[in-house]
Amino acid sequence: MYQIRLDNPSADVRAQLHQRLQAWVEEREGRLVCPDEDSSLLYVDGIAPSALEELRIWDGIVDICSEQDASFRASNLMPAKVEVGAAAFGQGLVSCLAGPCAVEEYDSMLALARGLAAAGATGLRGGAFKPRTSPYGFQGLGLPGLEILSAVGKASGLAVVTEVLDVRDLDQVAAHAQILQVGSRNMQNTPLLKEVGRVGLPVLLKRGMSATLDEFLYAAEYVALGGAPSVLLCERGLRHFDSAVRNLLDLSAVPALKARTGMPVIVDPSHGTGVAQYVPSMMLAAAAAGADGFLVEVHANPKASWSDAEQALPLQVFSDTLPSVAKVLQACGRKFHGMQPSSKV
Amino acid sequence: MYQIRLDNPSADVRAQLHQRLQAWVEEREGRLVCPDEDSSLLYVDGIAPSALEELRIWDGIVDICSEQDASFRASNLMPAKVEVGAAAFGQGLVSCLAGPCAVEEYDSMLALARGLAAAGATGLRGGAFKPRTSPYGFQGLGLPGLEILSAVGKASGLAVVTEVLDVRDLDQVAAHAQILQVGSRNMQNTPLLKEVGRVGLPVLLKRGMSATLDEFLYAAEYVALGGAPSVLLCERGLRHFDSAVRNLLDLSAVPALKARTGMPVIVDPSHGTGVAQYVPSMMLAAAAAGADGFLVEVHANPKASWSDAEQALPLQVFSDTLPSVAKVLQACGRKFHGMQPSSKV
Amino acid sequence: MYQIRLDNPSADVRAQLHQRLQAWVEEREGRLVCPDEDSSLLYVDGIAPSALEELRIWDGIVDICSEQDASFRASNLMPAKVEVGAAAFGQGLVSCLAGPCAVEEYDSMLALARGLAAAGATGLRGGAFKPRTSPYGFQGLGLPGLEILSAVGKASGLAVVTEVLDVRDLDQVAAHAQILQVGSRNMQNTPLLKEVGRVGLPVLLKRGMSATLDEFLYAAEYVALGGAPSVLLCERGLRHFDSAVRNLLDLSAVPALKARTGMPVIVDPSHGTGVAQYVPSMMLAAAAAGADGFLVEVHANPKASWSDAEQALPLQVFSDTLPSVAKVLQACGRKFHGMQPSSKV
Amino acid sequence: MYQIRLDNPSADVRAQLHQRLQAWVEEREGRLVCPDEDSSLLYVDGIAPSALEELRIWDGIVDICSEQDASFRASNLMPAKVEVGAAAFGQGLVSCLAGPCAVEEYDSMLALARGLAAAGATGLRGGAFKPRTSPYGFQGLGLPGLEILSAVGKASGLAVVTEVLDVRDLDQVAAHAQILQVGSRNMQNTPLLKEVGRVGLPVLLKRGMSATLDEFLYAAEYVALGGAPSVLLCERGLRHFDSAVRNLLDLSAVPALKARTGMPVIVDPSHGTGVAQYVPSMMLAAAAAGADGFLVEVHANPKASWSDAEQALPLQVFSDTLPSVAKVLQACGRKFHGMQPSSKV
Repeated sequence: MYQIRLDNPSADVRAQLHQRLQAWVEEREGRLVCPDEDSSLLYVDGIAPSALEELRIWDGIVDICSEQDASFRASNLMPAKVEVGAAAFGQGLVSCLAGPCAVEEYDSMLALARGLAAAGATGLRGGAFKPRTSPYGFQGLGLPGLEILSAVGKASGLAVVTEVLDVRDLDQVAAHAQILQVGSRNMQNTPLLKEVGRVGLPVLLKRGMSATLDEFLYAAEYVALGGAPSVLLCERGLRHFDSAVRNLLDLSAVPALKARTGMPVIVDPSHGTGVAQYVPSMMLAAAAAGADGFLVEVHANPKASWSDAEQALPLQVFSDTLPSVAKVLQACGRKFHGMQPSSKV
Repeated sequence: MYQIRLDNPSADVRAQLHQRLQAWVEEREGRLVCPDEDSSLLYVDGIAPSALEELRIWDGIVDICSEQDASFRASNLMPAKVEVGAAAFGQGLVSCLAGPCAVEEYDSMLALARGLAAAGATGLRGGAFKPRTSPYGFQGLGLPGLEILSAVGKASGLAVVTEVLDVRDLDQVAAHAQILQVGSRNMQNTPLLKEVGRVGLPVLLKRGMSATLDEFLYAAEYVALGGAPSVLLCERGLRHFDSAVRNLLDLSAVPALKARTGMPVIVDPSHGTGVAQYVPSMMLAAAAAGADGFLVEVHANPKASWSDAEQALPLQVFSDTLPSVAKVLQACGRKFHGMQPSSKV
Repeated sequence: MYQIRLDNPSADVRAQLHQRLQAWVEEREGRLVCPDEDSSLLYVDGIAPSALEELRIWDGIVDICSEQDASFRASNLMPAKVEVGAAAFGQGLVSCLAGPCAVEEYDSMLALARGLAAAGATGLRGGAFKPRTSPYGFQGLGLPGLEILSAVGKASGLAVVTEVLDVRDLDQVAAHAQILQVGSRNMQNTPLLKEVGRVGLPVLLKRGMSATLDEFLYAAEYVALGGAPSVLLCERGLRHFDSAVRNLLDLSAVPALKARTGMPVIVDPSHGTGVAQYVPSMMLAAAAAGADGFLVEVHANPKASWSDAEQALPLQVFSDTLPSVAKVLQACGRKFHGMQPSSKV
Repeated sequence: MYQIRLDNPSADVRAQLHQRLQAWVEEREGRLVCPDEDSSLLYVDGIAPSALEELRIWDGIVDICSEQDASFRASNLMPAKVEVGAAAFGQGLVSCLAGPCAVEEYDSMLALARGLAAAGATGLRGGAFKPRTSPYGFQGLGLPGLEILSAVGKASGLAVVTEVLDVRDLDQVAAHAQILQVGSRNMQNTPLLKEVGRVGLPVLLKRGMSATLDEFLYAAEYVALGGAPSVLLCERGLRHFDSAVRNLLDLSAVPALKARTGMPVIVDPSHGTGVAQYVPSMMLAAAAAGADGFLVEVHANPKASWSDAEQALPLQVFSDTLPSVAKVLQACGRKFHGMQPSSKV
C-alpha cells in the first residue's frame, strides 16, 4: 500500500486528478482507495513501486511513499531538543535569542550582548546580510559585521544566530555563527534550503509571510534532507490587512505545528507585530501557547540607535519582561533556560 | 482647533481629499494643519464649528470633532470592569463564559451547566437564534431555546449570554439573557448596533471576520451611543488562507485594543481556531496576552451530542484546563474569577 | 441516495465528522459513500428520509437533500435574464447602473441622471440609507433622499437601485425603488436576507468583503427562498493587504459564479478598487470576463461635489468609457443595453 | 530638497520615526517638511547630502534621494516596449508566451510548440528547473530539459522563457533561453535579483504571492540595477482564502502598475486562477484591462500528459481563445502580435 499526497488545488482540479489516477491504476489492474473528489491523500495497492515512480512527475502530486515512510520522513528524524551553547529549545526548555536588527559597532554590540546575557538571553541575533525591500536600503555590514558578531558572541557567551541570504556566502557565515537563519523571504528558495544543512549547523527557519503550515513543513523537510543536524521552526507573523500591526502573529501555529512535528517551535514577536509596545504581551502569550523559544529584537536605546528597529524593545523593557516570561513558563510546567549567573560576565 | 479623521483609502485618493480640504479651508480663510498626502488625521483652525458641519457629509471623512472630543467619545465612557451575575471582566478579573454552540434540551443543558459551574465558568453561552451560512442548516430552537437557556441559567447560577440576530427579537432575547451577543456577521449591521443598547444589558460584540481594529471600535461606538451600559469586545479569529485552522486567532488584538480603549477584551478560542485540540493552548495564550475573559464552546460529550460543535471542548478537558489558566493568570498578576464553591451545586 | 454537504472546517475536524457519520449510518444499517477524510460531499443510502432529518442539526452539516434537489434549489430557479425598466442583465445583455455614492439635492441629481442616461446608463444608484463605519459619518438623507431618488428616476427614465439596511425600512424603500440593494456588510444578515424578497422586487446582492463564493451563493439562496423574483450577484472587491487599492476586485468570480449558477453577475469597479483612475479599465475587464452589468459611482464633478466619492468617475469620463465598453462587449459577442435615444430626454 | 521614503510600518512606529527625524534635522539646523504622523514620504532641506547618508542605515528608511532621482531610478529607464524574437510587449503590442508547466520529451514538445505558433503564440514557456513545495515532487529535467527547450524554440521559431532558480545555474540557463524568468517564490531573493541582469537577457519577474505593488517594483529595481536590458512584470495571482480558485488574480494590478511604471505588464491566468476553465475569460479580461502579454500553460492533451498541469489549457481551447483575445485587443485599440503565417512551419 502506497500513499499518494496531492497538492491542494481547487475542487474541480482535484476531481480531475482523481479520475485520471483511477484510470491509470485500473489500466494496471491495481486498486485506488478513496476515490472521493475532495481527498488529498489517496492509497494505491497492487502496483509495483517502480511503476509508481512514473506518477512522481505528474503535476499536482507532491509525494508518493510507502506507508512506512512519512511525508516528512527527514524532518521527523530531527531532534525535539536543540542545544546550542548556553541555549536549549524543546522538551520543556525555553530559550531566548535577542539582539538588534542589524549588527552595529563592536563596542555597542558587546555592551548590549552583556546586558542581554544578564537579562537571561542565551543567544545573540543580528543581521550582517540584510534582505531589504529596496536596493537603496541599508544591506548590512557584510563580512565585517559577521566578524563583530562572532567576537561579541565569544566575549559574551551567547550563541550567535544570523541570516544567510546567498548560497555563495554559506561557508563564510557558517564560520562565524552557531545557528544559521533562513529568512521569510527565502522560505521557498529551494537551492538555499537544500544547501544550508551542508555545514552541519542547526537552522532557524522562518515561516514565509503567507505560507501555510504544510508549505512551512515542506521547507523544513528540504533543510532536513540537506543534512542539517536540527531545525528550529520560527513563526514571525503573516501578511495582514490591518495597519494596526505590521504583521499578524499566528500563535495557533504553535500548537498546530506541534501536532504535526517534533521540531522545536519558536516565535518572533518583533517582526510578528512590528510594534515594540505589543512585544512583551506576545512573548507571554507565546510562552503560554507552548513555544520553545523566542527571537526578539532588543536595542540598548532604540530611539538613539544607529540602525533603529522601531519594533525593537529597549534593553530595560526586555530585562523587565523575561522574569514574567519565566513565571508564565513555570505556571505551564516548563522552564526558562537563561544564562547562569557565572556566565553573566 | 478641530480634528478631521479621514477614512483609509488609497494614497492617491487621500492626496486628492487633502487638496480638496486645503482649497475649502483656504477659501474660508482658515488654516489646515498637516498638508501631507498620507495623513489620515488633519487639524483645522479658524473655521466656525457650524461651517465645519458641512464637511461631515463628504465621503472619506469619518469624523470631525473638537480636540476635547475623542473619536470614540461614547465608548471611552464605557466601564473598564463589567460585572454580570457571578462573572466579572476587567481590572484584573478574568471570567469564562462557556457552553454549547446551540441550545439543546433542558436536562442535558442543566447537567452541562452544573459541570461548567463546578469547573469555574460563571456564564453560560448557547445560541437560540443561530446565524447559518446555509438556509438549510439548523437555525436554532428560537423562543423555546431562550426559555431553556434562561431556566438553566437560573438553576445553575450562570449568567446567560446569547446572540440577538434581529432587531425585532431584541425584547424577547433581552427578557431571557444577562448579556446580549452581537455576532461577527452583524458587526456592521448598524440598525442592530444602534438598537441593541436600548434594553440596558451589557453587549458582547464579536469582531467581524475581516474587520480592522478601527472598524471594530467604531462598531462598539455605535453600541455605546445606543445606550448600552457596557461592552465586551470579543476577538474570534479572522478569515484565513490556511485550512490547518478554520480562522486565524489574532491575539495581538488584545494588547492593541487595550492600547486604544478601556473596554474589556475577551477571546473566543473555539471559533478563533475551529479545532478543539488547539483551544486549551489558545486559552492559556490569551490569558497571558492580557485578555479579560473567554467565550468557549464546551459540550458534555462532543462526539455523541445532538448539535455537535466539532470545535467544542469536552467538559472534562475544559475542567482540566481552567486550573492551568488560573495559574497563568496568577503568574501575570491577575485573577481567575470563577464560581464560588457554594454555588457549585 | 441522499447528499450530505459539510461545512468547510479544518481537515482534522472533517475527519472526525466523517467517522461520526460512518458510525451513525452503520448503526442504522445504511451505507455511507466516500469515507475519505477530506470530502465535503458525502452520499448516504438505505436510510429513511425522516431519519436523515436528525442529521440536519449536527454542527458542520450545511445541507441534506435528495440527489434531485440541488443545494441551491431556490436560486437555481431564479431567472438568468433580469429586466427592470430600461435595464436588462443576462443572456447576452449588459446594463449599467450608475450614480453618486449618496443621494444629493433634486436638481443636481436630475442633471446627473440625464447625463447618465445620455451616456447609456439604464439605472440610477444612490444611497438614502448609508452604512457607515463611524456613527459620526454622514448616514444619508433617509426618507427625503428616497423621494428625491424616486422622482429623479421617473423624470430620467432610469430604474432606481438603492440599499435597504433595516428590515423595518423595507416597505418604505420598496415604494421608491425598482431594485433593492443588500450591501456587503449585510451579506450574512439573515433576517434581512429572508425578508427582502417579500416585496417582490429584484434584489442586487453584494458579496461580503471576505466572503467565499459558496457563502455568497448561500446568501442568494436565502433571498431566493424569501420570494424575490430575481437576484443580481454583485462582486465588489475583497479586503486586501495592499493600500495601492482600497479593495481587491475579484474578476475570476465572474466565470467562477457563472460555472455555479445561472443568476446574472454584475461588477462594481468603484468600491472594487476605490480608485477612480482604475475604474474604466476594470469596467472593460469585467465586460470581457463575462459580467452582465456594472454598478458604478459617477458624479458630475467629483472634486466640487457635496458628498464626494473620491472613487467616483467624473460624468465626462463615464460618458467616454461606455462606448469602449460597448466595443469590448461586441468583440465578445454580447451587447451593451443602453438607453434608447428617444428616452435620453 | 531631498526625499526620504519610509517603510510602511504601523502608525505608531511611523510617528516615532517622524519624531526622531525631526530631532535629527533640527539638531543640524535643517528643515523637515511634512511633520505628519502618517506620512511615508518626507522632505528635508538645508542638510548636506553627505550628512544625509547617515540616515540610510536607519531602520524604516527605504530610500533617500534628491528630487531629481526617482525611487525607481533604474527601472524608470527600462524600455516600455520589449521585443524578443517574434514576441513584442508594450506600446500597443501584445504577445503570448505559452507552453507546458514542465519541459517534456523533444517530440511532444516540438509538436506542441508548432501548434502554439500556429495558434499565434510567439514564445515558449516550460520549466527545466521547477520550484516545488515538496522535495519529493518532480523538480524538472534540469540541463537536458534546457537543451530540449532550446532546440524546440529554434525549430518552432518561438522565443524561450524559462525559470532560473539558482544563481549558480544562471549562465547555463542563459545559454538556452531568450527570456529569464524569476518566479514568485524568489521575488525577494535579492542575491538572485541582483545577478540575473548580468547576462544581458530580458527578465520576466513574477509577483510574489502576497507582495504589494511597491515590493514588486522594488524587486524590479534590483533587477534593473543589476544590468538587465528590460523587465516584464508578471501578475500571477495572490494567496487567497477561497478554495474556489487556487490563487486570486489581481487584474487591478495592471492599471495600478501602469500608473507607476513604464515597464510592460503581463498576466499569467493559469497560476492566477489554477482552474483551466476560467483561463480564457481571464485572458480576455487581462487584455481589456491593458495587459501587454500573457504567460499561459497549454498542453496538447492535459488529461493524458506526462506532467499534467490541471490548470493547463488544452491546445485546442488555446487556439480557439486567441482570436477572441485579438478581437478584444482590437476593440481596445491595441494589437495582438502573433506569429506570421510564414513562420508557422
